[in-house]
Amino acid sequence: MLRLIFLCFTVFTLTQIINALVQDFCIADLSGPETPSGYTCKPSANATVSDFVFTGLRKPGPKIALIKASVSPAFTAQFPGLNGQGVSLLRLDLDPAGVIPMHTHPGAAELVLVTKGIVVSGFISTANQVYVAKLQKGDSMVIPQGLLHFQINGGGNTAVAFASFSSEAPGLQITDFALFGNSLPSDILEKVTFLDDAQVKKLKAVLGGTG
Amino acid sequence: MLRLIFLCFTVFTLTQIINALVQDFCIADLSGPETPSGYTCKPSANATVSDFVFTGLRKPGPKIALIKASVSPAFTAQFPGLNGQGVSLLRLDLDPAGVIPMHTHPGAAELVLVTKGIVVSGFISTANQVYVAKLQKGDSMVIPQGLLHFQINGGGNTAVAFASFSSEAPGLQITDFALFGNSLPSDILEKVTFLDDAQVKKLKAVLGGTG
Amino acid sequence: MLRLIFLCFTVFTLTQIINALVQDFCIADLSGPETPSGYTCKPSANATVSDFVFTGLRKPGPKIALIKASVSPAFTAQFPGLNGQGVSLLRLDLDPAGVIPMHTHPGAAELVLVTKGIVVSGFISTANQVYVAKLQKGDSMVIPQGLLHFQINGGGNTAVAFASFSSEAPGLQITDFALFGNSLPSDILEKVTFLDDAQVKKLKAVLGGTG
Amino acid sequence: MLRLIFLCFTVFTLTQIINALVQDFCIADLSGPETPSGYTCKPSANATVSDFVFTGLRKPGPKIALIKASVSPAFTAQFPGLNGQGVSLLRLDLDPAGVIPMHTHPGAAELVLVTKGIVVSGFISTANQVYVAKLQKGDSMVIPQGLLHFQINGGGNTAVAFASFSSEAPGLQITDFALFGNSLPSDILEKVTFLDDAQVKKLKAVLGGTG
Amino acid sequence: MLRLIFLCFTVFTLTQIINALVQDFCIADLSGPETPSGYTCKPSANATVSDFVFTGLRKPGPKIALIKASVSPAFTAQFPGLNGQGVSLLRLDLDPAGVIPMHTHPGAAELVLVTKGIVVSGFISTANQVYVAKLQKGDSMVIPQGLLHFQINGGGNTAVAFASFSSEAPGLQITDFALFGNSLPSDILEKVTFLDDAQVKKLKAVLGGTG
Amino acid sequence: MLRLIFLCFTVFTLTQIINALVQDFCIADLSGPETPSGYTCKPSANATVSDFVFTGLRKPGPKIALIKASVSPAFTAQFPGLNGQGVSLLRLDLDPAGVIPMHTHPGAAELVLVTKGIVVSGFISTANQVYVAKLQKGDSMVIPQGLLHFQINGGGNTAVAFASFSSEAPGLQITDFALFGNSLPSDILEKVTFLDDAQVKKLKAVLGGTG
Repeated sequence: MLRLIFLCFTVFTLTQIINALVQDFCIADLSGPETPSGYTCKPSANATVSDFVFTGLRKPGPKIALIKASVSPAFTAQFPGLNGQGVSLLRLDLDPAGVIPMHTHPGAAELVLVTKGIVVSGFISTANQVYVAKLQKGDSMVIPQGLLHFQINGGGNTAVAFASFSSEAPGLQITDFALFGNSLPSDILEKVTFLDDAQVKKLKAVLGGTG
Repeated sequence: MLRLIFLCFTVFTLTQIINALVQDFCIADLSGPETPSGYTCKPSANATVSDFVFTGLRKPGPKIALIKASVSPAFTAQFPGLNGQGVSLLRLDLDPAGVIPMHTHPGAAELVLVTKGIVVSGFISTANQVYVAKLQKGDSMVIPQGLLHFQINGGGNTAVAFASFSSEAPGLQITDFALFGNSLPSDILEKVTFLDDAQVKKLKAVLGGTG
Repeated sequence: MLRLIFLCFTVFTLTQIINALVQDFCIADLSGPETPSGYTCKPSANATVSDFVFTGLRKPGPKIALIKASVSPAFTAQFPGLNGQGVSLLRLDLDPAGVIPMHTHPGAAELVLVTKGIVVSGFISTANQVYVAKLQKGDSMVIPQGLLHFQINGGGNTAVAFASFSSEAPGLQITDFALFGNSLPSDILEKVTFLDDAQVKKLKAVLGGTG
Repeated sequence: MLRLIFLCFTVFTLTQIINALVQDFCIADLSGPETPSGYTCKPSANATVSDFVFTGLRKPGPKIALIKASVSPAFTAQFPGLNGQGVSLLRLDLDPAGVIPMHTHPGAAELVLVTKGIVVSGFISTANQVYVAKLQKGDSMVIPQGLLHFQINGGGNTAVAFASFSSEAPGLQITDFALFGNSLPSDILEKVTFLDDAQVKKLKAVLGGTG
Repeated sequence: MLRLIFLCFTVFTLTQIINALVQDFCIADLSGPETPSGYTCKPSANATVSDFVFTGLRKPGPKIALIKASVSPAFTAQFPGLNGQGVSLLRLDLDPAGVIPMHTHPGAAELVLVTKGIVVSGFISTANQVYVAKLQKGDSMVIPQGLLHFQINGGGNTAVAFASFSSEAPGLQITDFALFGNSLPSDILEKVTFLDDAQVKKLKAVLGGTG
Repeated sequence: MLRLIFLCFTVFTLTQIINALVQDFCIADLSGPETPSGYTCKPSANATVSDFVFTGLRKPGPKIALIKASVSPAFTAQFPGLNGQGVSLLRLDLDPAGVIPMHTHPGAAELVLVTKGIVVSGFISTANQVYVAKLQKGDSMVIPQGLLHFQINGGGNTAVAFASFSSEAPGLQITDFALFGNSLPSDILEKVTFLDDAQVKKLKAVLGGTG
């Protein structure tokens, strides 16, 4: 018994040493400043299991009528425990005619996994090759970083997919929104896209663009 | 019409320039040598859409009786298109009493997503704190790189989860297999784990260890 | 004198030690396989100064009529000495009405420097903000990785700019070419871009697309 | 003389330019927040040579009776000058029967160097191969990141070793402490390790575990 | 019309989702602390186009008489928008006999581009090979990270070059300034450089050194 | 017994899965090509414990008369098991008047540990600050990447130190050797270092330089 007490005492010495060494994780303090490597961390001693768990993807996000789909991210801003961990998630729900429009993730490769229904997924390489596949439940497709890609419902029923990313801050730039959803003057936009003026103005009206 | 032909001609010039610039992806040539950054690439011109798609996770992998569960990786070795992409997947299927035993991934953080049933997931930090959560369908939990963790079925029915990783080569070291499934001499093993000789020999018998 | 000879002898010993330690550079062997970190290296002992010098940007590249501009890269494929060095160049020459159409670099940030004339340069953030500036000789603008951006001649004379990149393999995806210059079926393209069928077919005709 | 004065003046101009460019080092402000890349830096102008020197490894750390050894880290928490430098040290002192129990470093590879006595060092790969070597003074062994490993005194006298790491924050997870030194419920622990209840409770008693 | 209003409404929903995900850039808050990955960021919502543009390289910097040249950096300290972007610039102006003395950049490879005149550029590898080239307008040369190099005007007229770097904080250590421009005691300096005392004292006088 | 057989069978299934996932290490195939991330790997199945152990630092390397010291690296070229591991070693032995001359490591930070005698170690920052310390046995000093530094014996007896690096390929450029030990023409060298012609020729004679 005496030996056990002694051991416990010495164990605590080592535990103290070990405790001083730790940065296993860096839960984002979203109120603090960002850095090029992510947010500053909340004190690790205050971490609880809820910092490592995200329950926000149980259900589809709010449906977006234009695309008949919903997009629910679990990036650092939603799931602060991902800060610095190099991985994140995005839930996609597509109605039968649902579409995730052409977009890019400037900061990460994507690995999309279908968990319900049929999804047609495609990307375009910088060599202008098109790679399109019809994915069923359990299938996954990798989309290299920064390349244009899209998903559309490929069946008659609701489809669900979860995209994993090689970064906790992959970013998301939907081409149509970037082109038509802001104040970029139409004449410049037409020069750099070769789109017709009528087409540009039509989509600006739909997507909230001005100029 | 002449203008179009001319444009097409000049377009091809630019396309040729662009084609010369490409390394969007690096599909592993599994027959070639590895490097510290992954496998050498197959010629990108030979890539087809099937290089970017993995269908091997549609069904559970072979059930392992000892753990009442199956483990199906989609790492570079199974899905060569992931080479260099910094992300990968692992499918877990747990029978009602199924267990993914205590293990680590030496090379990646994990983001585990439950797609069916209830999974109890836990990890232990280097500060020796235990973080355990009961996850339902749609919930995810992040496991920082290299830390001991486990999953067990937390409900009465089959459970399924997909783990994403921040690397295409996360590695997997199951503690019991590493300790008891090889030729590490029992006397050394007992010295460095404080386990009793009987316990070590019992588990060596189960897990195929010698010495 | 004897001392000098002795010193020289011992110096060569140290030089041999040092020679054994070297990987200052990794000149790409373009005939060899690529890896996720770049091409395999030519033997460093064979390197000559010409491996580190690129003279291909002395003059404008071939003019592309459609955009009244030329684009001349000095990436690894053109300048093998850049392999693994994390930096590269691109020369842009714009006629008075010249345009570098909306595009992205999936693998690098860009720092564009104007060396002649006036260039209007702009990018769109993932928050859909537009940042456009009129740059004169000596001005530079940073374009974060993977974001849509463009350059147009902003004056009445020829303009020249050199873009530096944070990678030797930044990639280049011109949005119009990616959308309209390949075999992506028009019906899918229209679904994922909301563009009208007439617009899509018009640009496919110009840019060599089929389907 | 006049020329020298002039030169000095202009030299100071250049020195000012250079001073503005500096981030050679980032001495950790341990009172500030951490980030995924390490601690925020103390102002570099305040740095003194003592920020770059660590004298805490001159003597063995406090002996831990259970393992007949001491473990003294020089990681960022002990040696703030290492912040961001990608390298750190750990001093190990082993009595004749001393043991560094089975453990991992989740964030770094280790290069252990014996400076006194004989040390038996071993690690287990994820392929379950065991690599064990008897090291004498001057010998070193590399332990890949995140793998289970141990050291034991292999001679009749005190042994000393210094481990270098490929990170200033390698972390340290001693398997026994992680399993038996916290509140992880015994029934869960037994399920995920296949250890017997008596064995678990015995080691929990020794290592301060509850539940 | 009603449909458009509805679409706009739903579009804003998606835009809000996207806005929450963004870290495209990290404009340095130079008044805040640094981290190993760079400065903390100013709030991205406050960014304006001027944060991404640098006009400080339009003209040569102040001439330094000693070297008949000027050196104007656009690193993070001068151009905060570069923080975290992995690329930066330096403008060099050389009078006919101008010299950029032997120096290193400890943190980046350099890609120097001549935009006016003739520049002789050279570097020395760790294998002690010398690579020297005479560059004309439009020529570029890569200098691997951390190696000793220099530039001198190679013609009879003013020359201008722009160096790009693979980091926004490449650092700059001019060998002469480092050796002779501070308080390093002459006896130590002579021991570690084999230079004669008279030579050391002469250059200390020129470059402001003491001791 | 039957159960054990069954378990063993299923265990082997899992082991096979795990074996397929492995890249714990990448022992350099020094006969193969290099890549920007290091050498290609020997097949991991052929690895033996000797690949992970280096015995070449048991004794001092060959003494170099000029510096009264020896320098023995354990970098990838000497210790192929370090390939890709991000850490390496260098043994320094200094006679009473021994000197490790001013030098840099272009690719790594250094953490130098004294194991015998007294060593004076110093470095010069890019802000031209000098940091010099007298280190005794057990003391360590960190030298940031790429900065000029030196070590000299600070006592009356032989001194020994081991330097660890944050890379397995730190490189080593001894300033005197780089300046005076090759064919760089004396007139260029004098222009870019401000050294006198007599000084340059004297050191070229000692260090084997020509031109």
